[in-house]
Amino acid sequence: MKKLEEYVVSIPDFPSPGIIFRDVTSILQDADGLNLAIETLLSMLKDVDFDVVVGAESRGFIFGTPVAYALHKAFVLARKPGKLPRETVSREYALEYGTSSIEIHKDSIKPGQKVVIIDDLIATGGTVEAIAGLVEELGGQVVKICFVMELAGLEGRKKLEKYDMESAIIYEGH
Amino acid sequence: MKKLEEYVVSIPDFPSPGIIFRDVTSILQDADGLNLAIETLLSMLKDVDFDVVVGAESRGFIFGTPVAYALHKAFVLARKPGKLPRETVSREYALEYGTSSIEIHKDSIKPGQKVVIIDDLIATGGTVEAIAGLVEELGGQVVKICFVMELAGLEGRKKLEKYDMESAIIYEGH
Repeated sequence: MKKLEEYVVSIPDFPSPGIIFRDVTSILQDADGLNLAIETLLSMLKDVDFDVVVGAESRGFIFGTPVAYALHKAFVLARKPGKLPRETVSREYALEYGTSSIEIHKDSIKPGQKVVIIDDLIATGGTVEAIAGLVEELGGQVVKICFVMELAGLEGRKKLEKYDMESAIIYEGH
Repeated sequence: MKKLEEYVVSIPDFPSPGIIFRDVTSILQDADGLNLAIETLLSMLKDVDFDVVVGAESRGFIFGTPVAYALHKAFVLARKPGKLPRETVSREYALEYGTSSIEIHKDSIKPGQKVVIIDDLIATGGTVEAIAGLVEELGGQVVKICFVMELAGLEGRKKLEKYDMESAIIYEGH
């Protein structure tokens, strides 16, 4: 059987010279690859008791909702500013140049709920650190953070070291 | 049992006065709502023979991937320009003011493949009409188009009348 990493197409010098882009869409466009990715995430969660999956815009949506569906959990969207129609909580995080921010609906996490955060990729970890902060601000508890791919050279794992975190594929570089 | 439409929160005057915004995220943040939405889409597809689900950025990702996972199909992302890393095909479509465009990877649909397009909402139908055109340009066949919600007053259905199209919830207005 093919391994998950064999479904990933690597694109040199995208989006800028010296960067190797790991394309997660190539996993998805193969039915066996998509199935294996979701099964891998489900196996990370087999002993985890939780209520809600939070996914980050927009590739976190892709991996988060099949997991929520398969385990009969709720799904909460973490989105860029201005895209959610109801009252939100918002948090800024640093990018390589400048800052960005991320929002979730204020009523989407209830105090005491156990939350799993899912994203396709951890690079510097800033987005997911901000999302975890929002979950906690609303009284939720982050019980696990799952990624399909991790760029270990960017050391995002350090930002999340107080959480239980797991990645399906770890690349040494960035 | 609650009906799917009972999970939808309607927000008056968002994003502009006179518009009633139908919030699909409120379905998702309830585990039973999410489950019912996906089961409803699966029931639309129970007699449909197909290979690939195409979902439109970004809420089409949310509903498309659980369906692809549940039925062991591939998932293809239709994205806004510049977001897909490999070679794409692209198509413009009209918005209320101006135009936008949508892309899919050139190698994501193989000639002869049967394709289901899934999106959260049909308004004017422009995005999905463009996506259907891209699928056909690559030699694929659009066998069904599924929506969670339809704003019937905007008459998007007319643009898609040559396709088999179905919506879970139909609102008469816009």
